[in-house]
Amino acid sequence: MERTRVPFTFQLDKTLSLLSNPGLLLASTKRSGASNVMTIGWGTVGIIWGRPCFVVLVRPSRYTYEFIEDSKVFTVNVPSEALREWVGFCGSRSGRTVDKFAAYNISISRGQLVEAVTIDACPIVYECRVIHYNDVIPAHLDPAVEATSYGGKDYHRLYYGEILGTFAVPGA
Amino acid sequence: MERTRVPFTFQLDKTLSLLSNPGLLLASTKRSGASNVMTIGWGTVGIIWGRPCFVVLVRPSRYTYEFIEDSKVFTVNVPSEALREWVGFCGSRSGRTVDKFAAYNISISRGQLVEAVTIDACPIVYECRVIHYNDVIPAHLDPAVEATSYGGKDYHRLYYGEILGTFAVPGA
Repeated sequence: MERTRVPFTFQLDKTLSLLSNPGLLLASTKRSGASNVMTIGWGTVGIIWGRPCFVVLVRPSRYTYEFIEDSKVFTVNVPSEALREWVGFCGSRSGRTVDKFAAYNISISRGQLVEAVTIDACPIVYECRVIHYNDVIPAHLDPAVEATSYGGKDYHRLYYGEILGTFAVPGA
Repeated sequence: MERTRVPFTFQLDKTLSLLSNPGLLLASTKRSGASNVMTIGWGTVGIIWGRPCFVVLVRPSRYTYEFIEDSKVFTVNVPSEALREWVGFCGSRSGRTVDKFAAYNISISRGQLVEAVTIDACPIVYECRVIHYNDVIPAHLDPAVEATSYGGKDYHRLYYGEILGTFAVPGA
């Protein structure tokens, strides 16, 4: 079904509820054209510098890191219930060893506003361009968070994606 | 009216719509007990490190900066329409030169979960504890954003506030 443009605040309570379970799909595409997708359970949405932003966190060890560093664009795709199994797959396997789209015969399309792919079966998609990035700073982190999430290494990079457009299917 | 606890996703589309106009109210309290409030138009909400977070941006030149650096707690208060004029006032004056609460006879109460004040007339309140902070990095910022928002100085600090509780009045 064709998606149409909606405000970035559209059904944001639903998007953030799905972020924690089963997760959202962070898709990225290199300038060479190669694409990858990973499941994210963390991220924030709001307004920074007067622009709607989707902030995503990616560890430097992740395959996706190479993609966003290369092209500075990404999409966040809100999965339908039917995609739940694939979302779990995308969160447990690396694109270095498997083509996650091909493995489940997932149909993708280039974004309308960015050169990153979107996942056709997802009812809501955020198309983003990186306008800033910074890193998690170990010395500025609550010790309990450090202990639970890091163990002294592989601190996330935060990509501040300006939401150039939010697209949703009717009735999403 | 008494507020009760709600999920942090409660009416999030409304909170983020009000963020851009007229703005939300960022309240902070020093360990000494002194409080201040400023209007914010920027910020993000989501989940990081498995915890609901409200990320706010504060320039080091702001009076509020001293408060959050001191106590590492803050509240974000969603204003009612009746507070619109005061929200404008809070965004144009510094607490260094005026007691913004007293100026409009605004009633405040200590948070239920943090030692920072909340604004009684606000229907939704997020009580937050800082679990991380980092800064806007000029070298990693889109040049157009840099030109519009900074002009080479006073880059924001980002405070990652774990939302310990979200509270709303019935019918908010």
